Formats: sequence, structure tokens, C-alpha cells
Amino acid sequence: MGTTARLIYDESESNSDLYYLSGFLAGDPFLYLEIEGETRLYLSDLEVDRGRSTSSVDQVERLQAVVEAIKDADPDLAPANAGKTSSVLRRIAHDHGIDGFEVPGSFPVGLADTLRGLGVGVRWLQGSFAPARLLKTPEEVEHIRTAIQHTQAAMQAAIDQIARATIRGDTLYDGAEPLTAEAVKRTIHSTLLERECFGPLPIVAGGEQAVDPHDRGSGPLPANRPIILDIFPRHMPSRYHGDMTRTVVRGKATDEVKRMHKAVFDAKAAAEALVRDEAQGQAIHKAVQAVFDDAGFETGEKDGRMVGFFHGTGHGLGLDIHEAPRIAKGEATLRAGHVVTIEPGLYYPGLGGVRIEDDVLVTATGCDNLCDFDQERLEV
Amino acid sequence: MGTTARLIYDESESNSDLYYLSGFLAGDPFLYLEIEGETRLYLSDLEVDRGRSTSSVDQVERLQAVVEAIKDADPDLAPANAGKTSSVLRRIAHDHGIDGFEVPGSFPVGLADTLRGLGVGVRWLQGSFAPARLLKTPEEVEHIRTAIQHTQAAMQAAIDQIARATIRGDTLYDGAEPLTAEAVKRTIHSTLLERECFGPLPIVAGGEQAVDPHDRGSGPLPANRPIILDIFPRHMPSRYHGDMTRTVVRGKATDEVKRMHKAVFDAKAAAEALVRDEAQGQAIHKAVQAVFDDAGFETGEKDGRMVGFFHGTGHGLGLDIHEAPRIAKGEATLRAGHVVTIEPGLYYPGLGGVRIEDDVLVTATGCDNLCDFDQERLEV
Repeated sequence: MGTTARLIYDESESNSDLYYLSGFLAGDPFLYLEIEGETRLYLSDLEVDRGRSTSSVDQVERLQAVVEAIKDADPDLAPANAGKTSSVLRRIAHDHGIDGFEVPGSFPVGLADTLRGLGVGVRWLQGSFAPARLLKTPEEVEHIRTAIQHTQAAMQAAIDQIARATIRGDTLYDGAEPLTAEAVKRTIHSTLLERECFGPLPIVAGGEQAVDPHDRGSGPLPANRPIILDIFPRHMPSRYHGDMTRTVVRGKATDEVKRMHKAVFDAKAAAEALVRDEAQGQAIHKAVQAVFDDAGFETGEKDGRMVGFFHGTGHGLGLDIHEAPRIAKGEATLRAGHVVTIEPGLYYPGLGGVRIEDDVLVTATGCDNLCDFDQERLEV
Repeated sequence: MGTTARLIYDESESNSDLYYLSGFLAGDPFLYLEIEGETRLYLSDLEVDRGRSTSSVDQVERLQAVVEAIKDADPDLAPANAGKTSSVLRRIAHDHGIDGFEVPGSFPVGLADTLRGLGVGVRWLQGSFAPARLLKTPEEVEHIRTAIQHTQAAMQAAIDQIARATIRGDTLYDGAEPLTAEAVKRTIHSTLLERECFGPLPIVAGGEQAVDPHDRGSGPLPANRPIILDIFPRHMPSRYHGDMTRTVVRGKATDEVKRMHKAVFDAKAAAEALVRDEAQGQAIHKAVQAVFDDAGFETGEKDGRMVGFFHGTGHGLGLDIHEAPRIAKGEATLRAGHVVTIEPGLYYPGLGGVRIEDDVLVTATGCDNLCDFDQERLEV
């Protein structure tokens, strides 16, 4: 009767569980195993030195040593077969008396089925291999706070640039040229860059573009209409994220847009008032919806597109820009130590889009807003 | 007897096959299907409008409509179950008479096994669902060429900055302060940024740091020793990459380093001379190794670390920074239309690291070097 080992095979630039568990950052897939409480990496010769000096695992092994052992045991084997990940894993299973691997649900089915075909068990587990990652340590909260400070600097620079624009007709101008979303994004990027942050896809969307919450925005920015600024960079030294949204109008907002902005502000406050250890994400999301319904801002499909409030209220934030828990229609329980965004919004063709977003730390009795940036100012 | 449909479930910021097939860029997973030659996306209400306006598929469906159909058919079902991806896929299979899905090997085993448990077949296929992606169209080659031009601008700015440094003792200075890898990276980043390129992790590694090819470099840069500059950004508007490396010495290179640089230059030329349609990657890699062996630069493990030439000669380049084919020890056949890097290097403790890298288009009779940047100058 053999033992069971946990196994992840992935790259760690996008798989944050793997980065969290291994402390090793690599853009190409590598093997992470937990065998009887001991954590190990198997790395190519190109990576093994860096793995030994930077990773947090107990053992860093040369992948090539396993491949050599396979070749030694079966000199007739084609070299390409000896080097296959499935062959390597079968050999590791043999050497360590492992009769099955436990893998995350995201494990590649091709490798899983191949191992099964070789007589090596593969069982996938629900949920994350690194659930502790969602409960931020004080050090992790500081990393997020730092990322947020840089996000706020970029937000301020973007708003300042919009506030400096002149108005001609329906359009904002920077001197003789229209002020474009691209120009504001350049300001955001360069501010982030000076601060070792990368957020390649910020949203600077005005007018009708902002009605689609995932339109990132392009071209000349409108006067007298809401412009959504959503900035969510990773601070590269720590790899943690900030995520903030503000909505501004350069010029005069209509009364209806002012009412939208007020409703979004109120909905956000209502959500934050409910955030605490053991709060239900669903209940918070419903509270946001209720504020909008009570203020007369209806949600639903109109002329073939969604209008009103039709995205989640928030999501966990950390090494991933989107992680558990989700504050939305589905079930999720908040825990002290979670960091979540709170980001209600309203979107109507003709009026435009309004969204306000901060990041909060869930505590035993409520939440700490990690952001410190004016939410009420609409006209700039 | 039902039909078989191809299925991908992933996000398309890192899954370039999915981006190539769908033309739809999203950071959260979505469903892509090919049913009897028709391509379809199933998107959340948040994404469906953007999907209809930007994707290249035949049909964009509302995911929520499938969920509603599931709820209508079984009003007692818990809402969370109706929304599960496995439930949605079972329903789509039912509606379209699909008795099995073909998926790529990277498909998540958790979802595959769940579908199988529901009686829906899942079979994974070897290789890519988008093999055409590797054979670049003239338009794609132009995208890569543009990315390379921006890469070259950043390379030139970095080399100029190093060339301007003053030398005191073993260290480079910018005025009163040491010139650091971080400062050169800021120059690279800001040059790329102005050109809508992102390459968050360039390598600026001097002295002993450069002996580990994956050390990205940090701190003060050395005088009179090789500094490796490896820059590989994505041009965001097209999402294609450039990837180039140069090695420079500010001050005087030793004769041994000059010999290393010459050997790397010769090895690269030997590799390029072999590149053409139907060339074998293995043969090209062996030719590089032979140039190094003949010049007396040995490869192997020394004092517990790899020295000499111990990474691949090159890799495919396109929407992914690393894609097929690999020019390395394994089998791979080059085809006209592939774009590959050629990047031999040598690494010895005490001497440092030297690498030169260009990107070439494989043609029927040879290759076109898409880069146009001096390779021979070592001292700056």
C-alpha cells in the first residue's frame, strides 16, 4: 500500500496557488509535489539554480536526474519518451512508493488520463491547494496597501489630467488636440511604472463606451458625461494587486447622472456596512441591488442588452486580481483576513456608466477600507 | 448517434489558441465550442455585448439563457447547480445532440471528470486546436516585425544608458550613484510604454548574475564584465511579441570574454544557416553545441551547477512568447511561416554570461532575420 502525493503541474506566473506554495516564479510549467509533508520542485537545468536560491520548498530536484534514471533503467526507450512529464511522474511515483496523485481541478486532463493509462492514479480535489492564500497575513495586507497607494497615485494623475482638459462642444481637449483615453492611459502607465507596478489594461471609458463595463475605452473623451477610471495593477516586487475605480465628469453632470452617482455611493456604503467575518456575499450583493431598486434604477435586459447593475458587487484580491470570495449572486462566506473589492455600478445607454470601487480588509467586527481616495467628487 | 463538438474552457489572456480561434480577449474563463463547423461563445451578461462586437466567432450566446433553460426544466434544482459549468455543458450537449466533447490536453481534469460522471463523453486530443497559429500570415509577420522594432528601440536606449555610464573601480556610475539594473529596466519600460508594448520582466544582468540565464538582474551593474540585456515585450494592440538579447561590456572585455562572444556569434550564424523549411530543430541545436565544443567551451555540471550552453537554441514566437517549435534536444521540424528565436549563450562562473538573440522567419529556402540590430559590438 503506497502513499498519496499532492501534485501541481503548471507555470506560476498565472497560477498563484503554485507561486504561493512554492515561492518560485516561472513562466514555463514545472512540477510541484508534496510527499509525506515534504514539498519539492523538479526543475530543468536552466531553472534549478534559481529554484534553489529563491523557492520556499524543502527540496529542489534536477528533473534531468529523473530522466537519466529512466534512461538507465530502460536503455531502449526513445529519449523523447524518457523526457515526457508522464514518464517522469511515473518514475517519481515508483521511487517514492506513491500509488496516486492528488491534483487540483485545473490539472490538465491530457496528463491525468495519460498517467491513469500508465497505472498511476490521479484524483482531483475540489477547491484550492492553498486555501490559506485567501486569508491575508499582516505582511500580505501591507503588500496590498502598497499596491493600492501606487494605484491611487495613478488615479490622481489621471483625474488631474482630465480636470485640466478644456471643453469644446461635446469633447475634451488637451491644447489643440482632443484628450483621448489613450493619453490618459499613458499617464496611468507611466505613473505605475515609476512605482514598479504593471496594470496593462486599465479602463478609461467615457460616454456610451462606459455602458459596457468591460469596454476598456478608446479615442476622444467626452465633456459633461461620466468617465470611468478603473485601475488594477500588480506591484511587481510583491506580486500583490490594488484595484480601484472612480467616475468623474469634466464639466457639468446632468441631474440624472448625479442621482446615479449618489445611488452608487449609497450602495457601496450599504455593502461596506455589512462586510464582516461570516457575512454572506449573497446578502451583501442583494443589499446593493435593493439600494438601486429603491432609488428607481432598474436592472434587466432592454433592447437586447443588459442595463442597470448586472455584475458582481466585489471579489477577493491578492496575488490574483480576481480570487475568492466573490460577492455576487452565488454563495460565499466572508472571513476575517479576506481582502475584497466593493464595486457597485450602474450602466444605461444614453446616460453612461458610473462605478466606484475600493478594496477592504474583512475584520472580526466589520472592515477596514484600505483605500483613502475621495469617492464623492463627481465633477472635475 | 450524436455528434462530437470541440470545446475549450479557459481565459484567453494566457490561452493564445483560444484567443486566436475566438478573437475574444477575456481574463476570466469562458466557453468556446465548434459544433458541426460553427464556432460559438457562451458569455456572461457582463461580456456578451463585447463578445458580439469584438469576437470572430459565428455565434455569441448568452450563458444565462442556458442557465434559465436548466432552471425551467428542473425548478427544484438549486440555483448554484444550474449555473455550474458542467450543468451548462450537459445542457448544451443535450440541446445540440452532442454525445461527446473533444478538448485540448490542457482542459481541466475536474470539469472533464465531472462531465464524464454526468454521462457526457470527454476525449482529449494531442496537440493544439489552432495549429495554423504557428504558421504566420504576412499580416502576423508584420505584427511581429512591429513588436521587434519597439524591442530594438528599448534595446538601443538601454545600451545608450550603459554606454554613458562612468567607471569607478568595478562598478558603473550614473553621476554620483551606481548605475543599477533597475535604472536600465526603467529606461526599457518607459521606451516600451511609449510604444504600447509591455514586457514586465526584462533581463538586465551583469557579472555573476548573468551566469544563471533566468536571473533577471538587480543592483549596481559591473564595469568591464558582460551585461546581458534580454527584452521580450508584447505589443498590446496586436498581442504579438518581439524577443531579443544583446550582451555588452562597458569598459574593457577580457580576451576570454571576447572569445566567448565570438563563439556565441559564430554559433548563432551556424544555426541561422541551417534554418529553412523542413529543417530539424535537433540538428540546429547540435550544430550550435558543436561550434561551442570546437571552440573549447565545454558544457556540463561543475561544482554542482550547470556551465557552458545548457538551454535551448530557440523557440517559436508569436501570440505566445514561447510557443512551438522548440529548437532544442527534442524533435521538431521547422516549417516555412514559423517565426523562431535563435539565442545561443555561454555561462561560466568567474567569466559571466553571453547571449545573442534574434527572431527569424522560416522560409522555403532559408530564413529572414526580422531583427536589424548590431550583433558584433561587445564593448560600449
